[in-house]
Amino acid sequence: MRTIRLTVAYDGTELHGWQYQPDRPTVQGLLMTACARVLGARVKVVGASRTDAGVHALRQVASVSTSASIEPAALGRALNALLAPAVRVLDAREAPAGFSARRSARGKRYAYLIDRGRAADPFMRRFAWHVPQPIDTGRLAAGLRSLRGKRDFSAFCAAPGRGHSPVCTLWSARVVTRGRFLLIAVSGDRFLHHMVRNIVGTVIQMARAGTPLTRLDEIVESRDRRRAGPTAPAHGLSLLRVLYGPHDG
Amino acid sequence: MRTIRLTVAYDGTELHGWQYQPDRPTVQGLLMTACARVLGARVKVVGASRTDAGVHALRQVASVSTSASIEPAALGRALNALLAPAVRVLDAREAPAGFSARRSARGKRYAYLIDRGRAADPFMRRFAWHVPQPIDTGRLAAGLRSLRGKRDFSAFCAAPGRGHSPVCTLWSARVVTRGRFLLIAVSGDRFLHHMVRNIVGTVIQMARAGTPLTRLDEIVESRDRRRAGPTAPAHGLSLLRVLYGPHDG
Repeated sequence: MRTIRLTVAYDGTELHGWQYQPDRPTVQGLLMTACARVLGARVKVVGASRTDAGVHALRQVASVSTSASIEPAALGRALNALLAPAVRVLDAREAPAGFSARRSARGKRYAYLIDRGRAADPFMRRFAWHVPQPIDTGRLAAGLRSLRGKRDFSAFCAAPGRGHSPVCTLWSARVVTRGRFLLIAVSGDRFLHHMVRNIVGTVIQMARAGTPLTRLDEIVESRDRRRAGPTAPAHGLSLLRVLYGPHDG
Repeated sequence: MRTIRLTVAYDGTELHGWQYQPDRPTVQGLLMTACARVLGARVKVVGASRTDAGVHALRQVASVSTSASIEPAALGRALNALLAPAVRVLDAREAPAGFSARRSARGKRYAYLIDRGRAADPFMRRFAWHVPQPIDTGRLAAGLRSLRGKRDFSAFCAAPGRGHSPVCTLWSARVVTRGRFLLIAVSGDRFLHHMVRNIVGTVIQMARAGTPLTRLDEIVESRDRRRAGPTAPAHGLSLLRVLYGPHDG
């Protein structure tokens, strides 16, 4: 049994997220079907991040376990010939023994895009949340910075207490502005369900309302989801990268 | 009767072009319906460029004739509240007497986007033609340059001899590369039906095949559509700007 590591990009607009569903198009489902057709047998496809419906990925990583002897690059080309154009395999290579896209991941980087224009940009409407109201970007940046570190992020978790630890280390959380667009970039060792979207929804609500930043610390400390703001819409979120250790690239 | 000038952007992917069709969504049709709802009466909406199905616009210009006393900015906001998100009114203002988006136009600028990546970028697949085969960009640029000037462009016209003159002046035709993307930008006083797409289809075919540039001149001189290359797909084309004289902005 060998493992092939795929780097996959997708426009999640018309997909029902990463995770397999029997009757809806999902990234894992499309990859499983295409792999089965190319390799002639059902294979397991494991993804690093189980992105929600509507969320995009620039470089998602998936591992495919197979006993077939196909060349990784040939598998990549064959998959692209079969997959919907919204999903593209950017790279396919042999992975070291024991590699799992999910278990081997040391961290992830996400970006959330916000369109601040008066009227939403029609070309970016699938990839950016339209927030025409004024945003205090200084307050936004300070709020995000204050979230860094190893903390219990239960207040930003959609379904806390599911048996997973709510403690994550947020390595960085910053704002980049480019013309009318505002990008919130976060990286950390792991993320809870809806965590990035809940952080974005909360800090945007606070930056719009001019709420003092001390409130943000109180929300984190409370570990109470009801204290945080609304979940920002899925379509503004993109998985940028999955980070692995030196031994698995 | 006054004239309001609208600047309109649209993602043409799911639209059936500019021109009104009774049973399909078109930009003109959507604008007519929305204007009628806001102004309470049927109005004429004239567009500068009758873009084909699938073609996009960054700054199309339309003129709306009305006797209603609405403030232009209020009309713009009301239209955006009613229109599909693929169509956005970027600006609405009072036009000088006698202004017509179409008749007053002095020229237009278009861009055709090509994705040269090995696998098509899933985020740009609605806006770029995927051409993974090698392209000699030097040859492409030289071919485009050689097309400039006042000429009979019948060889690049989808339906020549429709009663319109086939003589156009191409002011500029150039190539801009940005990473994996290649942009063909053209501007001129007027364009025949499918002219930009036929020019792009022809020069790309020649640049891929390494055909000598003298062939391009022969094609133009022949005024024979059958001598030119295929029509490049609609989705790579965007109307960038409509140019007007100093008196009408």
